[in-house]
Amino acid sequence: MNQQSSQMRREILEIPQAVDRLLTQGEDAIKSCASALRALDPPMLATVARGSSDHVATYLKYVSELLMGVPVASIGPSVASIYKAPLKLGGSACISVSQSGQSPDIVDLAKAARRGGALTVAITNNPGSPLAAASEHCLNIHAGAELSVAATKTFMTSLVAGLMLLANWRGDAALIGAIHGLPDALERAARIDWPEVRAATKGWDSLYTLGRGPAFAISNEAALKFKETCLVHAESYSSAEVLHGPVSIVGQGFPVLAFAAHDAAEAALVEVADQVADKGAAAFVTSPNATKATRLAHIRTDHALTDPIALIVSFYAMVEKTATERGIDPDTPRHLKKVTETL
Amino acid sequence: MNQQSSQMRREILEIPQAVDRLLTQGEDAIKSCASALRALDPPMLATVARGSSDHVATYLKYVSELLMGVPVASIGPSVASIYKAPLKLGGSACISVSQSGQSPDIVDLAKAARRGGALTVAITNNPGSPLAAASEHCLNIHAGAELSVAATKTFMTSLVAGLMLLANWRGDAALIGAIHGLPDALERAARIDWPEVRAATKGWDSLYTLGRGPAFAISNEAALKFKETCLVHAESYSSAEVLHGPVSIVGQGFPVLAFAAHDAAEAALVEVADQVADKGAAAFVTSPNATKATRLAHIRTDHALTDPIALIVSFYAMVEKTATERGIDPDTPRHLKKVTETL
Repeated sequence: MNQQSSQMRREILEIPQAVDRLLTQGEDAIKSCASALRALDPPMLATVARGSSDHVATYLKYVSELLMGVPVASIGPSVASIYKAPLKLGGSACISVSQSGQSPDIVDLAKAARRGGALTVAITNNPGSPLAAASEHCLNIHAGAELSVAATKTFMTSLVAGLMLLANWRGDAALIGAIHGLPDALERAARIDWPEVRAATKGWDSLYTLGRGPAFAISNEAALKFKETCLVHAESYSSAEVLHGPVSIVGQGFPVLAFAAHDAAEAALVEVADQVADKGAAAFVTSPNATKATRLAHIRTDHALTDPIALIVSFYAMVEKTATERGIDPDTPRHLKKVTETL
Repeated sequence: MNQQSSQMRREILEIPQAVDRLLTQGEDAIKSCASALRALDPPMLATVARGSSDHVATYLKYVSELLMGVPVASIGPSVASIYKAPLKLGGSACISVSQSGQSPDIVDLAKAARRGGALTVAITNNPGSPLAAASEHCLNIHAGAELSVAATKTFMTSLVAGLMLLANWRGDAALIGAIHGLPDALERAARIDWPEVRAATKGWDSLYTLGRGPAFAISNEAALKFKETCLVHAESYSSAEVLHGPVSIVGQGFPVLAFAAHDAAEAALVEVADQVADKGAAAFVTSPNATKATRLAHIRTDHALTDPIALIVSFYAMVEKTATERGIDPDTPRHLKKVTETL
């Protein structure tokens, strides 16, 4: 297979342009929704999502808590779809994230949140979807068609749409400026593809990804993509959790990939990466400060909260190459369909 | 090593007695805290925990949402300890769970929650700990000394203490009755140790555990214990998530262990277990309704919310035997210490 020809690679390379399109064509809807949130001043947010979209929700949770002190509850869709439990969400807002906007359990929970009193916001690539119809505000991510089963550009545009929403709600000019600088940063990030990680993971069927704070959401996304595209059992941990128990499976050469943003957690994350390197792991970290773990090339952005967004693009470039090097077509992962409808 | 002699096994066998002690000696503190919560009527709960204790928090999240419709936000300890972000928690309650009550990041976040306006509750085995001192209410779990690094009886007593708190807050007599029936049910559950799972996982270094709703928290706990005591890369998924991507690594004979309670999610969970069995997995499920997955022996309790609690005891009995059969001393996992202090 010609490596250049994978749909996943083409869609990764489209990310900067898709983010740019979102920031232009999606701006009005985002600003109008941000005004509604500012007027409401909710004491908490709820999120509803699955899979990659749930990693977007985890990222937005950290941003909301760090930027505004507003706590975020991730609600399991089963609460509505299976258990039919009525939720008390009066005065709050509920953000649903779904590329297709079609999974019945996500739609059920968005409806239950609205009945429970929440202002409902859908982040979706399909403004004609049942999820969009069930929600008061719809943020179209303007990603265009995504054909690869493994979501990349819809993950990025969902994440940027949600971040832009929170930045506008907060009225944070520095963050809004950094978001507008993302297309350029992502263009550069897509050219990095970590050959040393590809070499170290060769032959391994199991590995860890690590993060902390907003970068933990990125680590979650990386682990899922490793599974989907390379059939590798990658699992994501907070760098603060990994030493509590999960480290026990880390033997000689076990790959560990740590996503560090240039933020207050960088030092703690680097320390854990160095510690697992000391235990024999093949540890990598996106920071110049590691002493035992291998330092990976990375693109920094103009804000600590946008740094993780550049990291995942370099990861996507790496994992697509890893898949093709393993002889796997990253566009058609084993057992998977593009739209999963869960009840 | 003599299998009967492991500290972990002795502590598993002490679980029914420890739960009984908690229900007698801990009752007053639980009832007093429940009254305070009823009077407060918080619109949301926050939880603070790591590792096994965080699985307790996940279980309590489902119970709160299903029983009372009160949403629960799990707050990453880094929000306070690393990022120093002030949280807005006015009118809410925050439950911290920590066996030792000593990890600085957990204590920091409990303090930040109190400053942010939350009523703070500590669930701990150490009423003299910094966490207990930092919290307005302390629920002593009365587990007695726990010497094995892998927590079992402190997980169980933390979980029952939290459940009893929510049941008393809600004034749910049926649930309170079922909780009082637990010591007997757990006694019987400890005698089940799933030899067919031990046989199927032999030689495997990677597997999945599954759950949905409250049983998902139990699945999380099972995956961590597999790692800690057997050095197996076990990962937990919601049965609704696993088909979205993680299923791609499931090949012929890949072990999948699904924890089904007798609740509204049982049918959906059994369906996924049957589906992964169809893809070649060695799938097991604690339900009589499976047609392709192997049905495992299990103890049912007097309430759907207490069913998962009996399942984890049978799991503990199984995983301790799996470790000793693999020649691993489950009391001293590789790389681990009993008390992990994270900054």
